[in-house]
Amino acid sequence: LALVHHPVVNKNGDTVTSAVTSLDLHDMARTARTFGIGDFFVVTPLVDQQDLVERIVAHWTTGPGGQYNPKRREALELVRLKDAMPAVLDEIAARGEGPPRLVVTSARPSSRAMSYGRLRVLLSDGQPTVLVFGTAWGLAPDFMAAADVVLAPIKGPGTYNHLAVRSAAAIILDRLLGRPDTAS
Amino acid sequence: LALVHHPVVNKNGDTVTSAVTSLDLHDMARTARTFGIGDFFVVTPLVDQQDLVERIVAHWTTGPGGQYNPKRREALELVRLKDAMPAVLDEIAARGEGPPRLVVTSARPSSRAMSYGRLRVLLSDGQPTVLVFGTAWGLAPDFMAAADVVLAPIKGPGTYNHLAVRSAAAIILDRLLGRPDTAS
Repeated sequence: LALVHHPVVNKNGDTVTSAVTSLDLHDMARTARTFGIGDFFVVTPLVDQQDLVERIVAHWTTGPGGQYNPKRREALELVRLKDAMPAVLDEIAARGEGPPRLVVTSARPSSRAMSYGRLRVLLSDGQPTVLVFGTAWGLAPDFMAAADVVLAPIKGPGTYNHLAVRSAAAIILDRLLGRPDTAS
Repeated sequence: LALVHHPVVNKNGDTVTSAVTSLDLHDMARTARTFGIGDFFVVTPLVDQQDLVERIVAHWTTGPGGQYNPKRREALELVRLKDAMPAVLDEIAARGEGPPRLVVTSARPSSRAMSYGRLRVLLSDGQPTVLVFGTAWGLAPDFMAAADVVLAPIKGPGTYNHLAVRSAAAIILDRLLGRPDTAS
């Protein structure tokens, strides 16, 4: 799982670097731990934002937060800080399990969108896969275009498509890795 | 959809009243809007917390937040403030569409847990249904015992069951109302 703060777009479609939201780290780490994800990469090129991520993670892993709430520690231990996506892909490739498959998510329709059922089948082939979420108004178009897979957006019965990234990540990991009625 | 701040339990199992978390309102309202939910009841008996909810909702509906971000306004317009669950049930009953079905959620296993597939079938009968989430460490046992339906917990491949309530609500509404591959 990767959460990207650059390159993302703002409300006007300009490519920007977004600020890190503490609750994204907490919620998405807890979701990642629930669904058995190996690593949660938090990607930002900004040094002050990297410092913030390191302080949050340290508090809840080696610091007092981890003693107060060991379940939160188990989740935040999954966080790996990276300055850009190529560093994420390099780290995964260096593990020798094959080149990583880059899957991107978006709230916008795409002509090449892959269904959840199709991606579930692909995931069973054992190739390492990194599932990428963008902050702000989503991943930049050039970044999306370079991905191996663009996952279909989450849609409800209407046209509203403004889920929080924390909520979208929870739904998508459940759709790809959850077993609603066998696991309950 | 209802988010309950009393009666819930704390880490030690004592029944308490939890504080309102602003981001619960935002994330769960956006999720509710995505899946076509009619009302998002925020339930707290504390007057200062009721004031907080009213201020947040006013900012994003009639105030400047709604002008800046109309999509956030569409979501937060679903919020209905109530002091206790009986007031929620009374309001739904007064609509004359039949007595509301009370469905509660929990991260803990229950001997009477209903599967997602079974509840999807029940929902198609047209009876009004309120789906309740507890904050803090979850809904109080007496409250759970009085519900019509206890929904099965969300489980991943392991034993970790500490999702944020925001994430759990997103997954559960998608499981009950989403159509992963027909709607995309």
